[in-house]
Amino acid sequence: MLVPELRERVYKANMELPEHGLVKFTWGNVSAIDREGGYIAIKPSGVAYDKLSAENMVITDLDGNILEGDLNPSSDLPTHVELYKAFPEVGGIVHTHSTEGVSWAQAGRDIPCYGTTHADTFYGAIPCARALTPKEINGEYEKETGKVIIEEFKKRGLDPLAVSGVTVRNHGPFAWGKDEKSAVYNAVVLEEAARMARYTESINPEVEEVPQALKDKHYLRKHGKNAYYGQKGDSH
Amino acid sequence: MLVPELRERVYKANMELPEHGLVKFTWGNVSAIDREGGYIAIKPSGVAYDKLSAENMVITDLDGNILEGDLNPSSDLPTHVELYKAFPEVGGIVHTHSTEGVSWAQAGRDIPCYGTTHADTFYGAIPCARALTPKEINGEYEKETGKVIIEEFKKRGLDPLAVSGVTVRNHGPFAWGKDEKSAVYNAVVLEEAARMARYTESINPEVEEVPQALKDKHYLRKHGKNAYYGQKGDSH
Amino acid sequence: MLVPELRERVYKANMELPEHGLVKFTWGNVSAIDREGGYIAIKPSGVAYDKLSAENMVITDLDGNILEGDLNPSSDLPTHVELYKAFPEVGGIVHTHSTEGVSWAQAGRDIPCYGTTHADTFYGAIPCARALTPKEINGEYEKETGKVIIEEFKKRGLDPLAVSGVTVRNHGPFAWGKDEKSAVYNAVVLEEAARMARYTESINPEVEEVPQALKDKHYLRKHGKNAYYGQKGDSH
Amino acid sequence: MLVPELRERVYKANMELPEHGLVKFTWGNVSAIDREGGYIAIKPSGVAYDKLSAENMVITDLDGNILEGDLNPSSDLPTHVELYKAFPEVGGIVHTHSTEGVSWAQAGRDIPCYGTTHADTFYGAIPCARALTPKEINGEYEKETGKVIIEEFKKRGLDPLAVSGVTVRNHGPFAWGKDEKSAVYNAVVLEEAARMARYTESINPEVEEVPQALKDKHYLRKHGKNAYYGQKGDSH
Repeated sequence: MLVPELRERVYKANMELPEHGLVKFTWGNVSAIDREGGYIAIKPSGVAYDKLSAENMVITDLDGNILEGDLNPSSDLPTHVELYKAFPEVGGIVHTHSTEGVSWAQAGRDIPCYGTTHADTFYGAIPCARALTPKEINGEYEKETGKVIIEEFKKRGLDPLAVSGVTVRNHGPFAWGKDEKSAVYNAVVLEEAARMARYTESINPEVEEVPQALKDKHYLRKHGKNAYYGQKGDSH
Repeated sequence: MLVPELRERVYKANMELPEHGLVKFTWGNVSAIDREGGYIAIKPSGVAYDKLSAENMVITDLDGNILEGDLNPSSDLPTHVELYKAFPEVGGIVHTHSTEGVSWAQAGRDIPCYGTTHADTFYGAIPCARALTPKEINGEYEKETGKVIIEEFKKRGLDPLAVSGVTVRNHGPFAWGKDEKSAVYNAVVLEEAARMARYTESINPEVEEVPQALKDKHYLRKHGKNAYYGQKGDSH
Repeated sequence: MLVPELRERVYKANMELPEHGLVKFTWGNVSAIDREGGYIAIKPSGVAYDKLSAENMVITDLDGNILEGDLNPSSDLPTHVELYKAFPEVGGIVHTHSTEGVSWAQAGRDIPCYGTTHADTFYGAIPCARALTPKEINGEYEKETGKVIIEEFKKRGLDPLAVSGVTVRNHGPFAWGKDEKSAVYNAVVLEEAARMARYTESINPEVEEVPQALKDKHYLRKHGKNAYYGQKGDSH
Repeated sequence: MLVPELRERVYKANMELPEHGLVKFTWGNVSAIDREGGYIAIKPSGVAYDKLSAENMVITDLDGNILEGDLNPSSDLPTHVELYKAFPEVGGIVHTHSTEGVSWAQAGRDIPCYGTTHADTFYGAIPCARALTPKEINGEYEKETGKVIIEEFKKRGLDPLAVSGVTVRNHGPFAWGKDEKSAVYNAVVLEEAARMARYTESINPEVEEVPQALKDKHYLRKHGKNAYYGQKGDSH
């Protein structure tokens, strides 16, 4: 069996989604990439979480062609493939229909950076990528979803490891990271930051984003070469 | 004992309601129909979920006359019977007082289709059927509830397998499907779509429904002969 | 030991409050009355739920004088005593600081009857009793709390078994019933009806209460001599 | 090993944060001080709750210099140290990113005292301390956070044992008490009072704070020499 260690990691990361309350039924998937070996591992499509195992993860090449697996891969695979191609530092990707993230996607608004909980993980607002056109919807839909995300990051000049998440208009959140573990972490933070932003605006409709100095401080406190949060060698 | 397999299925589907957080106390019921044999199985009225068993499900004929069972059937049985008569493709029905579904029913508004989470299961807005008139309330109340739902679907020209749920004004949600299992699934999605729609409007009061192309894409991606989501042979 | 059966019932009813998510820490209490014997049993003050037992319930006479018990009774006892004196059909009383009930109390508004979930249990709006005056606050505070509730019911001409709950302005909810079991049931429904009413108004700020015919139908469907909901002999 | 009893108490208090739903991941910390011995015990930085033990608590002197411990102390330690120096009656401090507390911090508003649930624990509104200036942010950030809190209490003339909590603008809540146990209790009440205040304003946007007489009554009912709530000798 190909890449047993990658399978195991991706299986475990998928199981974290229901534990963190990010999915109902089968509405979520995690993948990870082995760029040197040329492998992607991803959850099979429409399979219940309690039926998942390392063995039934689907293995594809870097273009999304199935190399090993009896089940169909998640239908969102072409989105993952596009993102892996455009963002070479990314090692893991998560897609969910988590309640708060979807609500901001449906509302068509960026999730503003209102505080340090958000700023510790995301360097500025979490963008809402534009809606797909009817032509894109009726074409290679999942691939076009990936392209719309990439277009948004290019247009705004964003670093995908500084802003490791997005919502797609009318759809829902995607998050990623240097590996599948940090991708799941970022998906959890996206959901919590989205919840807090909704509450914040209901308490104070006139609220504004935090000052740039605070965004800089909190992001750089945990990331980059002068990070001092946590224990030495930690990813967080 | 009549239809042991139908009893077992309906019992299990009823037990899923508290697991999915859709009911408090005894505020919910599931039924299923065996159209060939001429049987309906439904939860007994006002019995706690931890006292339910396949054995105490109530069996009636297609007009709701009790064929087997010492307990009264759910008082909503006449609503179920009307729906089974009007919607011949329907095999299972769920009624709950789930918090979000009831809140939209009380607000008297359709649940708008704001995103793909909704669109994957419901083809367009989930309608809110009109309030019953005093005459209907004081007549055969539960039967009239069914008739008001049917009237709404006829008036709007809706296919009950494309829009497999409704809320009744001032009352709460009903959901159905080709069997009792998909009826429960649809009841869960209705609740989650209702929650997301409430949040979405609070984040962006000016939000509009998704474009028709997205409704078409997502519904047909999971339903109909060109469906490609999930594994071959899956219901979802 | 006095009234072991009453102790046991009141102990069990108190333990239902955390199970239904109505209390944090020690913020809630249930009592029941034995009118013939002349006994009230009530939770001791400030004791954690996992330290409660039938044995440490406090037994008082009908004026609230302690007959048996080493611990202080709930500081709300004088409120319970006033209600038992004014409402002779009431057999059990619950007080909590449940989140939704308190929020309506703090907002100073009646909980409107927006649907059948509310109407099945409460016959019309759940009143918000007026705030206590500084003189009442600085006098026999807990006793005055009871008197303000009674004043509100008298002023509005309400039957305490048809509207078996109230919120006290700036404070929180009280619920009661023919026994401690139905009092707890009513406290749970009050909380859920309050939540649904909050959501309903956020979805439709122009919403109005349900028509009188629906209030009559639902209340009388479950209560009174023509009740047909549930199994014969049930309390609900 | 230094101060084993203090370690044990601080470890236990830290473990209460996830039990009360106040933290995700490692986003929270509790410390306690032994003023006579000259010790502070605090959670290590960025360590998961299920990896905590009394043994890996970090012990510092009253200036925050590490005396014992292989791990880095919580990066918020300098905030704790400032508060211990300014508030000599305080024996324990909690910092979290709890959802409701953070939302009020992000909204930049005091949490108003709308009812007795709040008033039983906090004597008046829970203040929102001003945002740090860019200079403070880029200086000794965590220490400046403590100074901003102290400045706010001095400016308003607040007694830190009567108002045992605060939110810091754009950041989140801090709570404290005579020991680490009451600090955790106060952090839980802050979160619940914040939630209720948000709901209250959504139900009635015109709501006002409770009268002074009620603030006095409830605070003094549980605190001070005439307290009568709970059992004799209780802290609550």
